[in-house]
Amino acid sequence: MANLLIITFVSVITLSSSFKLLPRFPRYNNQNRARIKPFRGDRNEYRYETKFFSQQLDHFSFADLPKFQQRYLINSDHWLGASSLAPIFLYCGNEGDIEWFATNSGFIWDIAPKFGALLVFPEHRYYGESMPYGSRDEAYKNATTLSYLTTEQALADFAVFVTDLKRNLSAEACPVVLFGGSYGGMLAAWMRLKYPHIAIGALASSAPILQFEDIVPLETFYDIASNDFKRESISCFNTIKNSWDVIIAEGQKENGLQQLTKTFHFCRLLNSTDDLSDWLDSAYSYLAMVDYPYPADFMMPLPGHPIREVCRKIDGANSDASILDRIYAGVSVYYNYTGNVDCFELDDDPHGLDGWNWQACTEMVMPMSSSQENSMFPADGFNYSSYKEECWKTFRVNPRPKWATTEFGGHDIETTLKSFGSNIIFSNGLLDPWSGGSVLKNLSDTIVALVTKEGAHHLDLRPSTPDDPKWLVDQREAEIRLIQGWIETYRLEKEAKVSLLKRSW
Amino acid sequence: MANLLIITFVSVITLSSSFKLLPRFPRYNNQNRARIKPFRGDRNEYRYETKFFSQQLDHFSFADLPKFQQRYLINSDHWLGASSLAPIFLYCGNEGDIEWFATNSGFIWDIAPKFGALLVFPEHRYYGESMPYGSRDEAYKNATTLSYLTTEQALADFAVFVTDLKRNLSAEACPVVLFGGSYGGMLAAWMRLKYPHIAIGALASSAPILQFEDIVPLETFYDIASNDFKRESISCFNTIKNSWDVIIAEGQKENGLQQLTKTFHFCRLLNSTDDLSDWLDSAYSYLAMVDYPYPADFMMPLPGHPIREVCRKIDGANSDASILDRIYAGVSVYYNYTGNVDCFELDDDPHGLDGWNWQACTEMVMPMSSSQENSMFPADGFNYSSYKEECWKTFRVNPRPKWATTEFGGHDIETTLKSFGSNIIFSNGLLDPWSGGSVLKNLSDTIVALVTKEGAHHLDLRPSTPDDPKWLVDQREAEIRLIQGWIETYRLEKEAKVSLLKRSW
Repeated sequence: MANLLIITFVSVITLSSSFKLLPRFPRYNNQNRARIKPFRGDRNEYRYETKFFSQQLDHFSFADLPKFQQRYLINSDHWLGASSLAPIFLYCGNEGDIEWFATNSGFIWDIAPKFGALLVFPEHRYYGESMPYGSRDEAYKNATTLSYLTTEQALADFAVFVTDLKRNLSAEACPVVLFGGSYGGMLAAWMRLKYPHIAIGALASSAPILQFEDIVPLETFYDIASNDFKRESISCFNTIKNSWDVIIAEGQKENGLQQLTKTFHFCRLLNSTDDLSDWLDSAYSYLAMVDYPYPADFMMPLPGHPIREVCRKIDGANSDASILDRIYAGVSVYYNYTGNVDCFELDDDPHGLDGWNWQACTEMVMPMSSSQENSMFPADGFNYSSYKEECWKTFRVNPRPKWATTEFGGHDIETTLKSFGSNIIFSNGLLDPWSGGSVLKNLSDTIVALVTKEGAHHLDLRPSTPDDPKWLVDQREAEIRLIQGWIETYRLEKEAKVSLLKRSW
Repeated sequence: MANLLIITFVSVITLSSSFKLLPRFPRYNNQNRARIKPFRGDRNEYRYETKFFSQQLDHFSFADLPKFQQRYLINSDHWLGASSLAPIFLYCGNEGDIEWFATNSGFIWDIAPKFGALLVFPEHRYYGESMPYGSRDEAYKNATTLSYLTTEQALADFAVFVTDLKRNLSAEACPVVLFGGSYGGMLAAWMRLKYPHIAIGALASSAPILQFEDIVPLETFYDIASNDFKRESISCFNTIKNSWDVIIAEGQKENGLQQLTKTFHFCRLLNSTDDLSDWLDSAYSYLAMVDYPYPADFMMPLPGHPIREVCRKIDGANSDASILDRIYAGVSVYYNYTGNVDCFELDDDPHGLDGWNWQACTEMVMPMSSSQENSMFPADGFNYSSYKEECWKTFRVNPRPKWATTEFGGHDIETTLKSFGSNIIFSNGLLDPWSGGSVLKNLSDTIVALVTKEGAHHLDLRPSTPDDPKWLVDQREAEIRLIQGWIETYRLEKEAKVSLLKRSW
């Protein structure tokens, strides 16, 4: 019976236009990467021990459930120890392998010596090696086994983990500072708000905590991504905007799919033009996220200013090149910058039994539309009924689209947080399409926004490089100063209390 | 199998000295009250509608569980409505029938007209009529069905409930103020901290949020209760302190239990002297909680200053009265002030399958000791192993004694909340033995302590009476002023935003 169920619901996975608008965060397991490269040795300074911590599966009930092993990475090379009240930097692991996040968050490693900080990277449950029920297959078996994959449980994991770690190190008095990017940044901000007794502050980089319900306009993501192309070249923007109809028309011709398969060098015959459009949509969205000012290899190896490069290819093709040839030339910058790919594999199941899709189908319902006016993407409105239907078909689960704002807030966040909470940095780069769903102005003296015009998706968390523009150097310096301030204030409080105690002896 | 399990664990319920130290909050279902009196008509102004709201059983997972119906009471007689941004006063239902709390929280009713407030009293899950699985029997069947009886779930219930209520009333912009006494006060404070976007402030009356682990000395509860007797009469204190050994000695005599049964007018033969001691301990503990300055009928009908009355009986007995006769005369003030009781029934199962005991056996582990030096109660140390063992025997559940402070904080709360959070009043009366586990000094400008020397357990939440001493009138006025301040600040914020919006049109 249980097996039958699985078979049933895997077989009904289909793509619908509404499900295409499922929130996209960077994925490490991108189709064109065979496997993640070994992490150690990528860069010498990313040295860590890998350990496991036994966690409750449900922190908020006392149901008799098996514990699971949460993986964490730890580096104490620079830690000045408990007696110095030296800080603990905790990266809030997000929706992927924690090693990938740890080795893509060079900023934390760069500043560890300056702060004498202990570094810990706990992995998010249901990702990487932190699998309930012993294995990914068992954890992802069905809606029942997946049901504990929620944000609140993940935050509680971090809380229990670091409380236990501090106790074991006799470091109860050491301040914890949270870091996170993207969904990890949301976790960092929410953790500071929900567990102020556990962490003294949070750097929430590119954290779209307002991308829920109708808090921000639903078009914001695709409008920003589109603007990233438009600012490089209006003709590039127009070519992309016009390409979708051309693709559909081509697909309707006899042998049209064969022709499109050939034009775009797919290894296997396209099933539909939707598959192609989604492949392109995905590339443009991710390009906007990683539109960094220098070459990087975050999701894909890419040149600096990759959108500029894409547009150069689109605009610079021979004057007799067709619109689809131009599109192909452009998107190849994203999918084949190294030039090593002979043909492209489409992700067979881009919206399948994936952890983030589960989260998007339960709590993380982040509605998005693509408008006819400002967007270069295919026009598409958010249709909650079909979204819900797809979630049911895929996971046999019903989303709770209003739960995230009930649990974490978001509506009128300025009034709420103006006199509540402290010590959160919301850092954003305005090229990042997720920036529209984040906090872009100071909410109080200590809940502040650091915004860079030319930054992209959590660029500030990446390691410093000789190519860093001044505004990036400045942004990171501002972050360091703020974090130093939190730690100093905390230490003064603690020391005042100790001296008060001493005086009363 | 399931039935067998129940039979097994009911049959092994025993009293051990460590389990005796289970945290006692006032219970409405006290043995000597046949049944709660009908509430309506008790006092004319307690008029409300009773409604039900469909709730998630587990807010923090997506397990396929049945919803349950949460009861709530609502009164809108004085509400000035959404367009006036009139406040919603929400009482955080605690461990009992919500009608009892609603009709024992006259303060909220008294001030509703002044504030033009809507009153809502949502019931705590697993109490009163808010039973998961359709009935109390089903809900309390075993550890699996009870497993969702947790504080975090209850807070999420309130959050979801009031968010939905406001949406239905188009009152999204109306400020919510939380109220609660005892465990309900803990809920109110924690709710303000965890859901600042849902409630603008909380009056947490007699809320011992620090009575966990070793945050406060374990002796504090029994020391305060003992001092309440000592301050009335040292000889009374000493008589009680000496009585425990006399009881044990008496019980060891031939026919000793018969004799004790007779002396204390029990309807049925005592099983052990422990049962008697627990019955007395319970009376003294509750007397300390309800040591109000005027006659009241909170748990029992009692005169004003009931401890003074108890001591008058103990000290004032004939000079040839035995120590046990004195104790009996004293305790009769508590158990039989009306003089209507012919014989006393012992609660057969004071630590049985009761909701609060489940909570005490899971999250709400509030360790207590009774010291040899300062306490008049039988000396007893908190022994976690036997506590845990009793919990296992009773409920087949293991406590998580460190979870409450991980989830809600408590250690070094001053440093944590000095620059985090706002708008909480911790009100306490120093006669209340729970006051020792609460917050007795201001943590910041807006997280403040209102302490009265002569107050007892959440006296401020009771209705005003002509007998109210000045310090009580003053305390309530201070509370009203603070709440007014929260609401005014909130309205100014909202109005500033609206006028800003208007200007930008």
